[in-house]
Amino acid sequence: MPSSTFDGPSRRLLLGALAALPTLPGLLGVTAAQAQTAPLASWNDGPARQAILDFVKATTDQASSSFVPPPERIATFDQDGTLWVEHPMYTQVIYCLDRVPAVVKAKPELAKVEPFKTVLSGNREAMAKLSMHDLLEILGATLTGMSVDEFNAEAKKWLDTAKDPRWKRPYTELTYQPMQEVLQYLRANGYKIYIVTGGGQDFVRVYSERVYGIPPEQVVGSAGGTKYGYDKNGKPFLTKEPKLLLNDDNAGKPEGIHLMIGRRPHAAFGNSTGDRQMLEYTKAGDGARLSMLVLHDDAKREYAYGPAQGLPDTKVGTFTQALYDEAKKDGWTVISMKNDWKRIFAFEA
Amino acid sequence: MPSSTFDGPSRRLLLGALAALPTLPGLLGVTAAQAQTAPLASWNDGPARQAILDFVKATTDQASSSFVPPPERIATFDQDGTLWVEHPMYTQVIYCLDRVPAVVKAKPELAKVEPFKTVLSGNREAMAKLSMHDLLEILGATLTGMSVDEFNAEAKKWLDTAKDPRWKRPYTELTYQPMQEVLQYLRANGYKIYIVTGGGQDFVRVYSERVYGIPPEQVVGSAGGTKYGYDKNGKPFLTKEPKLLLNDDNAGKPEGIHLMIGRRPHAAFGNSTGDRQMLEYTKAGDGARLSMLVLHDDAKREYAYGPAQGLPDTKVGTFTQALYDEAKKDGWTVISMKNDWKRIFAFEA
Repeated sequence: MPSSTFDGPSRRLLLGALAALPTLPGLLGVTAAQAQTAPLASWNDGPARQAILDFVKATTDQASSSFVPPPERIATFDQDGTLWVEHPMYTQVIYCLDRVPAVVKAKPELAKVEPFKTVLSGNREAMAKLSMHDLLEILGATLTGMSVDEFNAEAKKWLDTAKDPRWKRPYTELTYQPMQEVLQYLRANGYKIYIVTGGGQDFVRVYSERVYGIPPEQVVGSAGGTKYGYDKNGKPFLTKEPKLLLNDDNAGKPEGIHLMIGRRPHAAFGNSTGDRQMLEYTKAGDGARLSMLVLHDDAKREYAYGPAQGLPDTKVGTFTQALYDEAKKDGWTVISMKNDWKRIFAFEA
Repeated sequence: MPSSTFDGPSRRLLLGALAALPTLPGLLGVTAAQAQTAPLASWNDGPARQAILDFVKATTDQASSSFVPPPERIATFDQDGTLWVEHPMYTQVIYCLDRVPAVVKAKPELAKVEPFKTVLSGNREAMAKLSMHDLLEILGATLTGMSVDEFNAEAKKWLDTAKDPRWKRPYTELTYQPMQEVLQYLRANGYKIYIVTGGGQDFVRVYSERVYGIPPEQVVGSAGGTKYGYDKNGKPFLTKEPKLLLNDDNAGKPEGIHLMIGRRPHAAFGNSTGDRQMLEYTKAGDGARLSMLVLHDDAKREYAYGPAQGLPDTKVGTFTQALYDEAKKDGWTVISMKNDWKRIFAFEA
């Protein structure tokens, strides 16, 4: 008995939710209240907040010509620099650098070999000069060669203890409160949220559910292959391989979206040139589509970098003037951290 | 404000469902009734039906030591031979053969080249002798080189008109009613259902939502790369490339599950040696796990093939005696179509 497109998934969604909950009325009370009290409360009134409200109205109002059936409500978010802090360096790269001593302990011959020697020296200036090739070698040595379960346990342990030096808090607390509210608001309006990140898919999956409420299966990222095998007791396990299957950045983002989701998003959020194609692809769909870019123009509360709009240049999360101009020309919305966000982090008063 | 693991997804699920529905009480009435009246109605009482009921009870009863929180309830299903008919030939291969004339029309030079010449001849005996290399060449020519949108439109058109010669019905009606009931029953108990198929991911996605209530993002299959580009008006689109990213068969199934889902399934269903590793991987997890294999032992109502248990040998959906023995040894359940299923198809009286 084939289910209709509309009926099947919604029945599944509802029953899944019912099974998860102690009582339905209790939950309805909470969520209805949440949905009604001040969506996007950490946003200042302005074109960015309004663009989100208008988009949701246009795509969820059954009377709207841009109405989107719930199963097609897909929104994609870049992570580094869009959902959490990426400066001065991507959190995953810090993890990989921190893992080098353990890798060298297991393979002592690496201690005298570059780039491991430089990382072990702790000399931050020398480390800042490591080439992309050096970094890829470090990523390969620290992210592959172990079982999936071992990797998950190591990454979780690090995330539970490591702290950002500026805010002296776990990296997982450095997520932008206004963006958390966008996730909540879209979710409350039936959107299924995906992270689409240039970062490692397995790394982000370790904390995505806890930090963003986004389950592992809704994380699309750069992904290596795994290899199926058996331990000495015949128990099967997967080993992380160095082979890169998906480089989920630039054109790789829409390609990864097709591979992992198979539908064009209706909304997409990013903050750098690596997100350009994802935002183009999203905006090129029919009906109401939302493409938004976070501009880091708030040196005081977070960081300021572009080089768009005369902001300082950077290699981490580059937002070029060309990207800014494309956004303005094609009807994307640029979010000014400084002007559009009342606060940056949940831990702020 | 990070959501807790438990709270985030369930709120999303419920609100997604609410948005999809005209009235909540109406829906609740229907689904509660459905869930209570005879689950697995097309199954005969016996160890296979009982194994499914026991598994669901063990993993959804909060008092059970094997209780699985709803976000972790993942079930994976092979498609060909598990959810629908695969004999005498996989439906996707029939599609590819049917597409050859259109491909040759676009590239007339292929008319005199093998294997296209043989396919154009219509000689079924000669076609049956095509090698795997020949078939892969035909698959490449008919499944790649066009835009994703063009492919989707072509496949949909074919599925709307093509009919299976034995039952004289669209291929999409040849799904097993008892398995549709398993999908419904698991879904009603909070399971998120994935197809994990050796077939083409893009092909199955064209009809998975309509036929199984499984949305495109929950289809894991053999997948080629795509390439992002722009048409002459600057509009971006994706082209299907010949490069194979994921060969989702044998060990590729658990590898594909890790890539696309990132969690180990609690239940997995298959019917051939290509499903062996997926069932091993599922069964190797903690707590209650369900691994089941459909044995095609019903020549009268469908087909009979093995060669397990002395059934006729086949190259399409091979179920070896070694697989049968592994199933018995490791506590998987073998489903006998002949004995366990009251009826095969929904269109049967």
